[in-house]
Amino acid sequence: MTSSENGQRWEIEALVAELRELRLQSLENRHRREHPPKLPSRKVLSQIVDNLGAALFPNRLGMPDLTDEGIDYFVGHTLDSLLRQLHRQISLELQFVAEQQGLSLDTHTQATDITRQFAAQLPSVRKLIDSDIQAAYEGDPAARCSDEVLVCYPGITAVIHHRLAHVLYELGLPLVARVISEVAHSATGIDIHPGAQIGESFFIDHGTGVVIGETAVIGRRVRLYQAVTLGAKRFDKDDNGILVKGNARHPIVEDDVVIYAGATILGRITIGRGSTIGGNVWLTHSVPPDSLVSQGQNRTEVFAGGGGI
Amino acid sequence: MTSSENGQRWEIEALVAELRELRLQSLENRHRREHPPKLPSRKVLSQIVDNLGAALFPNRLGMPDLTDEGIDYFVGHTLDSLLRQLHRQISLELQFVAEQQGLSLDTHTQATDITRQFAAQLPSVRKLIDSDIQAAYEGDPAARCSDEVLVCYPGITAVIHHRLAHVLYELGLPLVARVISEVAHSATGIDIHPGAQIGESFFIDHGTGVVIGETAVIGRRVRLYQAVTLGAKRFDKDDNGILVKGNARHPIVEDDVVIYAGATILGRITIGRGSTIGGNVWLTHSVPPDSLVSQGQNRTEVFAGGGGI
Amino acid sequence: MTSSENGQRWEIEALVAELRELRLQSLENRHRREHPPKLPSRKVLSQIVDNLGAALFPNRLGMPDLTDEGIDYFVGHTLDSLLRQLHRQISLELQFVAEQQGLSLDTHTQATDITRQFAAQLPSVRKLIDSDIQAAYEGDPAARCSDEVLVCYPGITAVIHHRLAHVLYELGLPLVARVISEVAHSATGIDIHPGAQIGESFFIDHGTGVVIGETAVIGRRVRLYQAVTLGAKRFDKDDNGILVKGNARHPIVEDDVVIYAGATILGRITIGRGSTIGGNVWLTHSVPPDSLVSQGQNRTEVFAGGGGI
Amino acid sequence: MTSSENGQRWEIEALVAELRELRLQSLENRHRREHPPKLPSRKVLSQIVDNLGAALFPNRLGMPDLTDEGIDYFVGHTLDSLLRQLHRQISLELQFVAEQQGLSLDTHTQATDITRQFAAQLPSVRKLIDSDIQAAYEGDPAARCSDEVLVCYPGITAVIHHRLAHVLYELGLPLVARVISEVAHSATGIDIHPGAQIGESFFIDHGTGVVIGETAVIGRRVRLYQAVTLGAKRFDKDDNGILVKGNARHPIVEDDVVIYAGATILGRITIGRGSTIGGNVWLTHSVPPDSLVSQGQNRTEVFAGGGGI
Amino acid sequence: MTSSENGQRWEIEALVAELRELRLQSLENRHRREHPPKLPSRKVLSQIVDNLGAALFPNRLGMPDLTDEGIDYFVGHTLDSLLRQLHRQISLELQFVAEQQGLSLDTHTQATDITRQFAAQLPSVRKLIDSDIQAAYEGDPAARCSDEVLVCYPGITAVIHHRLAHVLYELGLPLVARVISEVAHSATGIDIHPGAQIGESFFIDHGTGVVIGETAVIGRRVRLYQAVTLGAKRFDKDDNGILVKGNARHPIVEDDVVIYAGATILGRITIGRGSTIGGNVWLTHSVPPDSLVSQGQNRTEVFAGGGGI
Amino acid sequence: MTSSENGQRWEIEALVAELRELRLQSLENRHRREHPPKLPSRKVLSQIVDNLGAALFPNRLGMPDLTDEGIDYFVGHTLDSLLRQLHRQISLELQFVAEQQGLSLDTHTQATDITRQFAAQLPSVRKLIDSDIQAAYEGDPAARCSDEVLVCYPGITAVIHHRLAHVLYELGLPLVARVISEVAHSATGIDIHPGAQIGESFFIDHGTGVVIGETAVIGRRVRLYQAVTLGAKRFDKDDNGILVKGNARHPIVEDDVVIYAGATILGRITIGRGSTIGGNVWLTHSVPPDSLVSQGQNRTEVFAGGGGI
Repeated sequence: MTSSENGQRWEIEALVAELRELRLQSLENRHRREHPPKLPSRKVLSQIVDNLGAALFPNRLGMPDLTDEGIDYFVGHTLDSLLRQLHRQISLELQFVAEQQGLSLDTHTQATDITRQFAAQLPSVRKLIDSDIQAAYEGDPAARCSDEVLVCYPGITAVIHHRLAHVLYELGLPLVARVISEVAHSATGIDIHPGAQIGESFFIDHGTGVVIGETAVIGRRVRLYQAVTLGAKRFDKDDNGILVKGNARHPIVEDDVVIYAGATILGRITIGRGSTIGGNVWLTHSVPPDSLVSQGQNRTEVFAGGGGI
Repeated sequence: MTSSENGQRWEIEALVAELRELRLQSLENRHRREHPPKLPSRKVLSQIVDNLGAALFPNRLGMPDLTDEGIDYFVGHTLDSLLRQLHRQISLELQFVAEQQGLSLDTHTQATDITRQFAAQLPSVRKLIDSDIQAAYEGDPAARCSDEVLVCYPGITAVIHHRLAHVLYELGLPLVARVISEVAHSATGIDIHPGAQIGESFFIDHGTGVVIGETAVIGRRVRLYQAVTLGAKRFDKDDNGILVKGNARHPIVEDDVVIYAGATILGRITIGRGSTIGGNVWLTHSVPPDSLVSQGQNRTEVFAGGGGI
Repeated sequence: MTSSENGQRWEIEALVAELRELRLQSLENRHRREHPPKLPSRKVLSQIVDNLGAALFPNRLGMPDLTDEGIDYFVGHTLDSLLRQLHRQISLELQFVAEQQGLSLDTHTQATDITRQFAAQLPSVRKLIDSDIQAAYEGDPAARCSDEVLVCYPGITAVIHHRLAHVLYELGLPLVARVISEVAHSATGIDIHPGAQIGESFFIDHGTGVVIGETAVIGRRVRLYQAVTLGAKRFDKDDNGILVKGNARHPIVEDDVVIYAGATILGRITIGRGSTIGGNVWLTHSVPPDSLVSQGQNRTEVFAGGGGI
Repeated sequence: MTSSENGQRWEIEALVAELRELRLQSLENRHRREHPPKLPSRKVLSQIVDNLGAALFPNRLGMPDLTDEGIDYFVGHTLDSLLRQLHRQISLELQFVAEQQGLSLDTHTQATDITRQFAAQLPSVRKLIDSDIQAAYEGDPAARCSDEVLVCYPGITAVIHHRLAHVLYELGLPLVARVISEVAHSATGIDIHPGAQIGESFFIDHGTGVVIGETAVIGRRVRLYQAVTLGAKRFDKDDNGILVKGNARHPIVEDDVVIYAGATILGRITIGRGSTIGGNVWLTHSVPPDSLVSQGQNRTEVFAGGGGI
Repeated sequence: MTSSENGQRWEIEALVAELRELRLQSLENRHRREHPPKLPSRKVLSQIVDNLGAALFPNRLGMPDLTDEGIDYFVGHTLDSLLRQLHRQISLELQFVAEQQGLSLDTHTQATDITRQFAAQLPSVRKLIDSDIQAAYEGDPAARCSDEVLVCYPGITAVIHHRLAHVLYELGLPLVARVISEVAHSATGIDIHPGAQIGESFFIDHGTGVVIGETAVIGRRVRLYQAVTLGAKRFDKDDNGILVKGNARHPIVEDDVVIYAGATILGRITIGRGSTIGGNVWLTHSVPPDSLVSQGQNRTEVFAGGGGI
Repeated sequence: MTSSENGQRWEIEALVAELRELRLQSLENRHRREHPPKLPSRKVLSQIVDNLGAALFPNRLGMPDLTDEGIDYFVGHTLDSLLRQLHRQISLELQFVAEQQGLSLDTHTQATDITRQFAAQLPSVRKLIDSDIQAAYEGDPAARCSDEVLVCYPGITAVIHHRLAHVLYELGLPLVARVISEVAHSATGIDIHPGAQIGESFFIDHGTGVVIGETAVIGRRVRLYQAVTLGAKRFDKDDNGILVKGNARHPIVEDDVVIYAGATILGRITIGRGSTIGGNVWLTHSVPPDSLVSQGQNRTEVFAGGGGI
């Protein structure tokens, strides 16, 4: 068996050398051999958000058999643990940015300050999510109770992640925020950029394929269905042909708007309050309040007894 | 370091008090301080469904090196364990409902009865899934063997979950059933409400974005592609403006229908047997058997040498 | 309590017998009682791909605090471990195929040979992924740095899996390759068949609902958005009505093409280099280079102050 | 390979039948087919004791980076969780005993009562363990600080387990208590029966091989070394030749006694306060206070330049 | 921070080279670079023995809530799994020995044969352990029921491991057997060589420090206490001064003997049936049946009011 | 059920308050509310030692299927990981000591220096352990090969831990060293203080109950059996009655000494080279080289046909 065992060689030494060479060539490593970047961890942030859910909704997302006597200890201990972990992740992003910019900052103190601000906003986040749950319950004929909504609905999972990620985005942590958004995207198929501003009582039904861009602004009591896009129409480039980053390029959706499945709404346009956008509509211009937008007629042709398409 | 360590305080005591206050205010807690709800567990139900798959397909979804001598012991032990776990989850839903309705029921005996009925239907569920696997193998030119289908295809994952969830839904456990459906939705992007009735030899290819509503009825040998919606056209409200829940509001799809990617079919309409619905079609009225429905012509304009859109 | 405990019987013996009978009846078991198939394991392959990512990008996808001194040992040990595991999975597919075909092959040696060829291609895979990351960074105004792209973007996750799966597909392992693709599909909603040929600097933004078929050919610097389909228009059948498997049936997309969200491109057509395909376009014929394809006008009707749709 | 695979049969069916037969024959099963006993779980109790240690010494046996703000939440939540788990284990022992005796008791309420009594004694247990730690620190020239003692010394591990187990033993739970004692015995080689009564400031150095019997009574400030036995001299039997269970049969050791390694002290004798018992002494009669007991002279013979023994 | 980070180098490259050199120099590697030995795994064997305990005593060492309906499936599946694992461990020892001896054996078939023989002896092992449990219950006044004995007593843990290890030792697997013995030794402090022959109804109380040698022979109804040694008196060497391995060198203990704590019995002597050996006795010659052996008088001196020893 | 549920209250709030009060009262907390001590972690150190074993003996204690190609990568990566972890544990001890002494030290740099010195000694530790393994193989007639010795013998486990712990002790880390020793003590029953100096080719057979004190000095080729004590005879106290810590108080055992089971050797005496100390001997004075020390005659009395003792 010697020969076949000898055969089982993978030339690892050569591989290791080639991969090292490629790392050194690649842009991102050229300047950082001494200071390899330490990025926030997706796994840790995912756990932190799960624990935030448990602290906000201890009976339903935390431990099922908490009694009145123990519940506040659970909430307090969960917060204490996760805020310390979050502080570490926030520090990693601040250090990463500082090193990229060649700055030397007291990231520890700054992270402490941000973590404290984040914590202080948790009660208002809870209130927003309560309004979202109520909206889901009222908006879906299949929902039997608000507990079912909180436990089952992917739209609620996505919105919990978003509301937490958005607070972090606003506190100057776009990378931590984005990682949290992508955790929800992977679990639900709903892709909400953490920069998007979303009012209370927001509901996404089914949700797979929804995309909401960074500068989108969504009012109160808005309802979306699966595969709705609130995207950018075009990307501006500067004189050197490089994309301009950060400018307002996604739609504004006012209060009480409903957007049905598959609608694509692009550019910095405004959907007036109370409007309804029909399924599969393609919309690139603003519409006034109380508009009803639907696809034109005659979209389909029916051939009775037809063959292959 | 004292000052920075002192700095690392999050005001947890105030946070805990605020969150407690919000819990007490929220609708769902007002009546249940003494009886906090214990909901079925998504994690446990996900494990139960994995084990059901292992019991139904022991070699391919269970343990790979089972021999003829050991296979029935594996199946029997797996069933024994998972049925006991399922009994517990069923009891949780029955208790939850009983408490919501202020009833005092012998949920233990009722759960035993339901679990036994569920178990008795497993062989027919296996037969249905066999037909689904065969349909996938025959319907996809990329499929090389039925094992590949069972192990790889998200459409099969979704349909296994659905067929099990649907039995539970029919036995009066909408919450347990819905949790199982959402496990599949998260893993596959395919969202089938457990209430949907689906005949044998059902195949969904690719699948991401498919939505099938609670009252949809699907015949035998139906094939769907990604992003197909079988949805409701409108939601009826009662005189108080509250959604009417539970009425038939999703399509009926008869035998041998094929629906291509992105088609949206809404309302309690009937797609006659043997029809083909083309990609991206928007359909809100019934079509007779053997119809061929496709989009109208001239949908696109081509500008050779065009600039930005 | 005896009666209720007696009640808690599930008739497992009968169930086990029925399920055994069904296994024996089913097609795939008829010929293999003696040789139950052992399929490659999704869980193991998922772990292998994670480790490949860690070996290729050790600081960002491997261990965050690797130093210059330790990094090559990490890469070498990770490769050594995962290649041995991959060798085992490859052997399983080769044995499975050999048994299906009644052949008696030296699958161990063959697997060794294939594993070595796979390993030798890792550096060029790293180069391709570097080009993909750079394309994502340059193509998305929301991207702040290439690290964010690598860690957050589902399109990059999908493309890493695809580039690895495609090498395995080309080496004659369609099942192993497909399992890897489905791991990415489940995590990202992006469904790329491992057979698809994709050039450098490929970028998929958002990505949920993208489907790319087995025989698709994609050039360099191509960019796709969510819900784009590169699919087959029709499936050919042979004289017996059985699907013809493996023939070229998906589009060719030349260099520098951009395809916006929701576009559906079907059949063995060619999208000429430098073309732009607008959102939601339905395209089943070839277009010349530098084409601009968009939907026709007047697609939507707006009723100010409208009611229900 | 068929023959060797056929060969790999273990005759499981016959084995299962034989083992079933043996279970039915064995004494303990004859009366309990309908009510199989559910015993307290060693694994769960081991975890409970670890958590009790963490609640009593949160910084050193719990979480190392607890701050003043979070420490009480940690202690409260840890207690809440473990007392619920302990309640379950206590119920199991009560039910087990009730079934053995054919009684029908409200074990749930009884367990609640016992758990509450146990909890109420935790502060005094903490005080006792503090005295034990201090005694270890003062009694061992190798100890550098009391933290080292708490974290490293097996004697402290054993005494923590004993003090908790003894409370449970006194509350009428000999089985739960014994399981806890055996967890410590396995980890430390120190075997203290949970019935033994031990005063404050107790220290066992090294400890392997120490045995302390059920009815031993140990005063304050007693120090033992490895392999000391406080055992029974003889076991009384009743007229039927059956062992009499439960009578006082182990030594009484008064305050401030030191017993060196390997000493064997047997029977219901009294070691007077302040006595010192030398290493390897064999003692079966009482000694007055302030005794010094050592082995006789001339125990060893030395042959210079000796050969094999 | 560059300097301190540079400082954090461990000279791994030099270390790896030095350690490689040492491996090559060491005796055991000189002949096996091509065939590194694969030894049976302690972790796997420990798990196998735990599972054997569960199969033999399913309610008490297996799953606590097994019902009559499920218990045989549990036993059958547990046996099926563990016998396959054991087969692998047995193969490893056989291969290891074959390679050491330069033989080329069909170890797979041989391992299958041995595994089957081992399985066939499990019912008689169960009977022996039943007799041991009964002996423990009858021999210890602190034992309340046989369940407590099975779950708590380290002597029973040791004897379960021994009875299983001894069967494997007799089947020609000294290494696998020894690993199992050492698992028990580590957990209990009881060191029984797997070669020792032990009759039914054997009981070791407390147990820490017990040593029983390879060629010891122990009759029926023997009882030992902690720290008893049944050892070799001298080790014979051959003409080259090398130890003679395997000859009978440990005591024979006949039926119904009791040996109290700390007794040391050395050499191939015989303790006649029904004898009692007192605590701490040192015995190197045979004694006839019904002997009572105790230490001489005057062993201790007592000084009332004594100072330091 | 309300009343019984209300009943299930443990008065946690009062308990938490009482325990807080006790923590504040206890000596060790009075001065450290602001700086709670962070001690080295037993769990982490246990893992580090396991990994050191794997790096030193990669085939037998590391990964069983390492090939020549991969082995150095395994060793290098394992060292890189564990040295970073060890650096952290060393820093914890240095900080802990610095805070106790009110010093402000650059513990990070100091820990780096110590870690590097530790690493540099690993090859000589490997050589020592090789000599220990060889001594065990040669000294035990039951040992079949040196692999069995390394994998099975608790004496080898203890000596590996000791040799590593001793290097750390010498480098000024008594707490880290002690934790490692206690890990071995718990697993083997062998208690070697990390301060003990032990020459090459050291072998402990069986081992349970062995105690070797902090200032013991052991030469080359020494062999011990179970329950041997190398202890202190008396503990010196200073004028205040406080134990003097750290002075030489344990035996010196010269080269080629054998000490049989249960021997107790106390005080700063010297056992001359080549001596043999018999079982159960009690020795408190020095003996010259080549001594043979055994117990006096007539130790036991035998009564044929005796009754109870």
